[in-house]
Amino acid sequence: MTKTRLEAFSDGVIAIIITIMVLELRVPHETSWEALRPLVPVLLTYLMSFVFLGIYWTNHHHMLHMVDRVNGAMLWANLHLLFWLSLTPFVTGWMGENKFVEVPTAAYGIVLLMAGIAYTILERTIIAFQGPHSKLRAAVGRDVKGYASLALYVTAIPVSFVEPRVAVGIYAATAALWLVPDPRIERRV
Amino acid sequence: MTKTRLEAFSDGVIAIIITIMVLELRVPHETSWEALRPLVPVLLTYLMSFVFLGIYWTNHHHMLHMVDRVNGAMLWANLHLLFWLSLTPFVTGWMGENKFVEVPTAAYGIVLLMAGIAYTILERTIIAFQGPHSKLRAAVGRDVKGYASLALYVTAIPVSFVEPRVAVGIYAATAALWLVPDPRIERRV
Amino acid sequence: MTKTRLEAFSDGVIAIIITIMVLELRVPHETSWEALRPLVPVLLTYLMSFVFLGIYWTNHHHMLHMVDRVNGAMLWANLHLLFWLSLTPFVTGWMGENKFVEVPTAAYGIVLLMAGIAYTILERTIIAFQGPHSKLRAAVGRDVKGYASLALYVTAIPVSFVEPRVAVGIYAATAALWLVPDPRIERRV
Amino acid sequence: MTKTRLEAFSDGVIAIIITIMVLELRVPHETSWEALRPLVPVLLTYLMSFVFLGIYWTNHHHMLHMVDRVNGAMLWANLHLLFWLSLTPFVTGWMGENKFVEVPTAAYGIVLLMAGIAYTILERTIIAFQGPHSKLRAAVGRDVKGYASLALYVTAIPVSFVEPRVAVGIYAATAALWLVPDPRIERRV
Repeated sequence: MTKTRLEAFSDGVIAIIITIMVLELRVPHETSWEALRPLVPVLLTYLMSFVFLGIYWTNHHHMLHMVDRVNGAMLWANLHLLFWLSLTPFVTGWMGENKFVEVPTAAYGIVLLMAGIAYTILERTIIAFQGPHSKLRAAVGRDVKGYASLALYVTAIPVSFVEPRVAVGIYAATAALWLVPDPRIERRV
Repeated sequence: MTKTRLEAFSDGVIAIIITIMVLELRVPHETSWEALRPLVPVLLTYLMSFVFLGIYWTNHHHMLHMVDRVNGAMLWANLHLLFWLSLTPFVTGWMGENKFVEVPTAAYGIVLLMAGIAYTILERTIIAFQGPHSKLRAAVGRDVKGYASLALYVTAIPVSFVEPRVAVGIYAATAALWLVPDPRIERRV
Repeated sequence: MTKTRLEAFSDGVIAIIITIMVLELRVPHETSWEALRPLVPVLLTYLMSFVFLGIYWTNHHHMLHMVDRVNGAMLWANLHLLFWLSLTPFVTGWMGENKFVEVPTAAYGIVLLMAGIAYTILERTIIAFQGPHSKLRAAVGRDVKGYASLALYVTAIPVSFVEPRVAVGIYAATAALWLVPDPRIERRV
Repeated sequence: MTKTRLEAFSDGVIAIIITIMVLELRVPHETSWEALRPLVPVLLTYLMSFVFLGIYWTNHHHMLHMVDRVNGAMLWANLHLLFWLSLTPFVTGWMGENKFVEVPTAAYGIVLLMAGIAYTILERTIIAFQGPHSKLRAAVGRDVKGYASLALYVTAIPVSFVEPRVAVGIYAATAALWLVPDPRIERRV
């Protein structure tokens, strides 16, 4: 089986998720700059989620470059990742509309963590399918950055209940870590 | 005619259906874990519908692997399937927001049944077009799993009026039956 | 220039239009079959618009089979068609929620007419670009069916103000006319 | 790396943005032509934004024709462009629902300006990656039209606070400037 439709479907779902998030930015009734002020945290959260989804898209793009054939397990590992990503607009809206308070900030981290785990499962599924000479394993190595991100999310979730703004800072730092596309794979390409 | 656009259009529609369902998960105004409790049945229904749509997508993906050329009847059989799938968000929202009561649970089953029938019609249309040496017929054989699913839906619909939670269990069991991609086709690929 | 992205973009836009229409089917708060009754005209209008968009998609699919190269005028003639199609959910909702009364029924016909004119303009633009040996002109000939549809819409619009249900019947009859994919082109393919 | 997924993802995002804008056209409860009157500015703004997004799509289409290989910086420059374009439905709704008053009209111009800057950054990123013999640089030359558009937006933003309708006129004039696809590139293709 070829990877064309897996890529096309994932592109479609991520494109829709990244775009419907903007629907949470409700058009205000007033027409002053003041009317935009309550939207600032919503806009900042939207920007952060846009960057996270952009990271998933570019990394997915890099990862699939290492894939020639696709099996059923990969289709479902990919759908599992898309499921968690599809919850991003919900937690983005919840955290953004409530200006980064405790529970919604923790919920945001939980969705990020689950998406990160799902990405790792997809990576492991591909490596298992490719066997001992896996191109992807050679490219990602021990995947330090991937596991570091999971550790950062695990840290940020309890921090949300004490200092939610620190947790948001950890999310932003994790995004910054990934903004550069993975040099290990780019080098090989 | 080639199948590229049929695949691309189906991928697009299924990607959108699977993603707009999440809009039913309305962002709560409160910020406690308690505020998420009424969303639990909505989230569970969303998960079940996500899995059903994932099944349709992967099976559609497998089925189209057996197709080389496309005719007008196939385009319309495919649109017919997409029509029933497009009603999924509506019945998902109705069943989920009302915590699995009678009529919405039956309506959910009716949409699943009609989508299952539409899938079978598409399968038969392809087999008829491919003629006596149909690759797809060789792959699906008597399609026991397909007809068993239709029988399960037909059973679950009346059950909804007596014990809606049992009907939901039947839907979940049917999904479980399909979670593994069709080995008959995978073997041939 | 190749036609790949023109097809992909059109598929994307039509897939989204056909799917967001279903958002007009608002989930009722009650859980009886009765609660669905006010949705019946909305569902029927949705079905009709789904069929119309399906017709545009399959005809667009057939037409692009006759196209090898794309120029700027074709890109814009295509965007013009997509603009009118994008108004379909609006008039579908307006007509469906008001049970086929005069003005919304006429507005529905106006959008159908404008989309039909836009399709004809796209067809003429392609034929002009292909020059004297245009494959598309050879396939569509005098395009009797296309012009007959425009005449039917022009008739139905004033009829909407007298007997809106007759106008709806004319729309349905026009759709029926097109349900079979164009044999002139299919023969040539 | 190939450009296929970059094109597919951009097509998907632009297709969704262009289509969800129409959701701002709320179905009126009345059924007279009068009921459409308050929607006229919303519809006109939608039309203008549709044209702007169409321009970005066709120019993106032309620009990517000059690209053979893609790197990580291009993926992110492209995501940056899509981010600003994704804010179009928000400012379109704000300006349209308030009939072109000062602040929303300026906000509309700011989003256009930022999208224009993002497009220029993407162009420069591609040219830098292609090196001294860049096909794209040869095609766009000094990009007079691109910089003229940025100058027009910079002019229109302060004008919005004095005569918002003049600012809207400047936006429309800028769109008119671009409606013809770039002859410099078309000639080379």
